[in-house]
Amino acid sequence: MTTTPLLPNHLGGQWVTGSGAGTPLFDPVLGTELARVSSAGLDLSTGFAFARDQGGAALRALSYGERAGLLGAIVKVLQANRDAYYEIATANCGTTTKDSAVDIDGGIFTLGYYAKQGEALGTARALLDGERIRMGKDPVFQTQHMLNPTRGVALFINAFNFPSWGLWEKAAPALLSGVPVIVKPATATAWLTQRMVKDVIDAGILPPGALSVVCGSSAGLMDQLQPFDVVSFTGSAETARIIRSHPAVAERSVRCNIEADSLNSALLDPAATADSEAFNLLVSEVVREMTVKAGQKCTAIRRVFVPRVLYDAAAKAIGAKLAKTGVGNPRNETVRMGSLVSQEQKASVLEGIAKLRLEAEVLFDGNGAALVDADASVAACVAPVLLGSREPAKAKLLHEVEVFGPVATLMAYDSETQAHELIRRGEGSLVCSVYSADPAFIARAALELGSAHGRVHAISPDVAASQSGHGNVMPMSLHGGPGRAGGGEELGGLRALGFYHRRSAVQASSAALDVLAASAVPFKV
Amino acid sequence: MTTTPLLPNHLGGQWVTGSGAGTPLFDPVLGTELARVSSAGLDLSTGFAFARDQGGAALRALSYGERAGLLGAIVKVLQANRDAYYEIATANCGTTTKDSAVDIDGGIFTLGYYAKQGEALGTARALLDGERIRMGKDPVFQTQHMLNPTRGVALFINAFNFPSWGLWEKAAPALLSGVPVIVKPATATAWLTQRMVKDVIDAGILPPGALSVVCGSSAGLMDQLQPFDVVSFTGSAETARIIRSHPAVAERSVRCNIEADSLNSALLDPAATADSEAFNLLVSEVVREMTVKAGQKCTAIRRVFVPRVLYDAAAKAIGAKLAKTGVGNPRNETVRMGSLVSQEQKASVLEGIAKLRLEAEVLFDGNGAALVDADASVAACVAPVLLGSREPAKAKLLHEVEVFGPVATLMAYDSETQAHELIRRGEGSLVCSVYSADPAFIARAALELGSAHGRVHAISPDVAASQSGHGNVMPMSLHGGPGRAGGGEELGGLRALGFYHRRSAVQASSAALDVLAASAVPFKV
Repeated sequence: MTTTPLLPNHLGGQWVTGSGAGTPLFDPVLGTELARVSSAGLDLSTGFAFARDQGGAALRALSYGERAGLLGAIVKVLQANRDAYYEIATANCGTTTKDSAVDIDGGIFTLGYYAKQGEALGTARALLDGERIRMGKDPVFQTQHMLNPTRGVALFINAFNFPSWGLWEKAAPALLSGVPVIVKPATATAWLTQRMVKDVIDAGILPPGALSVVCGSSAGLMDQLQPFDVVSFTGSAETARIIRSHPAVAERSVRCNIEADSLNSALLDPAATADSEAFNLLVSEVVREMTVKAGQKCTAIRRVFVPRVLYDAAAKAIGAKLAKTGVGNPRNETVRMGSLVSQEQKASVLEGIAKLRLEAEVLFDGNGAALVDADASVAACVAPVLLGSREPAKAKLLHEVEVFGPVATLMAYDSETQAHELIRRGEGSLVCSVYSADPAFIARAALELGSAHGRVHAISPDVAASQSGHGNVMPMSLHGGPGRAGGGEELGGLRALGFYHRRSAVQASSAALDVLAASAVPFKV
Repeated sequence: MTTTPLLPNHLGGQWVTGSGAGTPLFDPVLGTELARVSSAGLDLSTGFAFARDQGGAALRALSYGERAGLLGAIVKVLQANRDAYYEIATANCGTTTKDSAVDIDGGIFTLGYYAKQGEALGTARALLDGERIRMGKDPVFQTQHMLNPTRGVALFINAFNFPSWGLWEKAAPALLSGVPVIVKPATATAWLTQRMVKDVIDAGILPPGALSVVCGSSAGLMDQLQPFDVVSFTGSAETARIIRSHPAVAERSVRCNIEADSLNSALLDPAATADSEAFNLLVSEVVREMTVKAGQKCTAIRRVFVPRVLYDAAAKAIGAKLAKTGVGNPRNETVRMGSLVSQEQKASVLEGIAKLRLEAEVLFDGNGAALVDADASVAACVAPVLLGSREPAKAKLLHEVEVFGPVATLMAYDSETQAHELIRRGEGSLVCSVYSADPAFIARAALELGSAHGRVHAISPDVAASQSGHGNVMPMSLHGGPGRAGGGEELGGLRALGFYHRRSAVQASSAALDVLAASAVPFKV
């Protein structure tokens, strides 16, 4: 009997294989075992201390510009190994090449973006936040706010859907800030994260302790965190609750960034008609969002709000496009949508659909069609399902239950105000997209919905070709959302550095502030 | 038998007296009962909904400039009733007139500051955060970050030491942001908070629901919080833990600002001599910080770091000044330091001193002297105590236990690097002050200590007359600190508005962003 390889962890500046048989990783399409992971028996205490002390000191000894150079070098290593990452993604994530790109090239692009942004910060060691402010009548005494890198580690507990991007969108601002990273990828798809870290470590780019990876159980990781450390989590609301209740956060004030559930919305202008461009733009975007990565994007559209008069037309148009989506083995070039990442996720999505159906009708269900090149009894494939509700104001589950797959619910609304209210029933989401040719409608939506969303994405005919997509997270824009979405903030250009820095007000003489300014650079977002 | 009045609560737009006998409030010097408070039987659910819906909508219907006008009107009401506040403070807080001013006039000053800052925001309804950024080659599609007021309530659970300032330093940015306030003052000194809110409500300045006060138990308050609400707590680390573990925060992502314990430091330049100005400035500041408000300031100096060679001289100089501090009844004009706020606090401080003495020697103890005009068996008075340690690197409790009274510990250090390390042993504090004539020493301290402190306050001879004081919290500078200090951020000028707003990225056409910009104003800190 052959056993699959046990992927080593990198901690304490060395490669360490966990003890025991480990947990297997599977090909979600073929059902075959690919590798195993184990974090059992690791000396977490020594490993975290090594990262915090050795890795942190080495990173902080560099300027922002020098650390940006490290990010640039990581980009080159990852680009050189791109083919291997695509192979791993196909095998372990069940994604088509196009969907793998969102994760792999999206991660590399984000790293490159921060390499470029960081370069502009030059030789500085700290960031100046705002201008000097006089403290009284005598201008000799002033206050200058600044941001200093926190002297701790950044622990990332990541989600299964973005093993590459999820690592690099967090690691780029952390490393640029001078904060060492310890990543714990979700087990189901940990291979790609582990391999990328391995390539970067093997290339000898980073100082020892700057980047570590622990695969397998997260047991004990939170216990290691100390007051100047930070933790960033992407995943379920239930795990988010456990993390926020952990003594590290609740007692030691470890800074905590959470990205959890999100019932993102799409909103069509009430002035739209079935033959308007706004209508067509909505239909295309909904279909894209439902099918890209089989709907396994935290930013994917889950609720689609259209004027009541367009409900049937929208159902028909979206359903017609979904019907053309071939689902199955991503190795077959005719396949447009691969599988979910695991049988567990398939079961969870089917269960979620059943829940939503308590309040919704089925407008389209692709699961009647045969899978392409895949065995339905083995592959974790679920075809697109469009649900619908003509009375969303009476619904509860539709605004609460996130089904993490190719599923969305069409909803009819009666007025712009009601649509805004229904969208806010999501109690905090990552993204809301609006479809309209009217700049005033878009501006009202931004003002009404901005406080409930990390991002408001407006698709008007004039940006049809240039808009970046409802679900695509661009590094220059904030990613995160209040309430159910977890309350976190990531990316947003250099804003992302804030999480890894500590703000402080330096109240001092102008002479002292002048000396300080020579080591710092203005923090502009 | 006469009973003292039961102070009514203001909730749901009306005055409501709690049920039951209530909890008594005392004069901590005379031991007499002054009033009682009770929150028993209040309909919290309706009250919070009223504030959130009625108060929030009414405030958000105003511009920043209009809300700034409300703050200005509150300032006038409070100024007109100043005498009553001083009487309440003397009776209920045991403070001298000078110490009451820190709380009362400090609160009014902070309100006035935000009234002025807010006026400059004019007719805007939202804040633009940073510049527009292109999303691709075509400039028609861009991202603009903005801040929108959160559509929820702000719950303040406040500390006993600043019943006035503690309310207004939080309420000013909240109300300016358009967020209704519900304040739960600490019971021991709740009277002043209740009275100030009463005066403001009676003056009819604010829309119904914009300002509420609940005195007595905080039971059930956290249960009312919903995803777009925020909670701000100042007080003990233990209560902070309970708040952060509450489902509102841990599950519903209610945004939470905490200010807890803090072992603030003062650091004398190693180049200082016993006859240098830096030395004298340190001595004066330490004595002031130990005695103002009887050391009951979260920002007060708790650890004093001096070069080993100056340890004895510093002990002598500080002790000599402390010996001149008359302690007793604040109604006697020769008294420089009144009482602690309660017998509970007196017991806690004496217990804390006993703990620190396990690791420290006693360098000065004023408790041998008689109290002025006060009965030592009744009054909650504790005289200043200066402790000392020649080996602070070996100490543990000295860097962990905050004694919330007129107590500080002098510590000898051997090198600048060691001093920085020892200061960081506080694991996150609100303030560190440094005393030096050397701008380079100050700048190094800001870079080395900034990440562990919300504020670095540098006192050099050139700012001796104009510096604002180690422990004074000025509205233009950040107040808060990482780790043990709770990880919160308050004040810092308009930065304070961030807590009451939600950031979002609006990705849209230039035309839509132009319309949006007409309702907003750039957010400059």
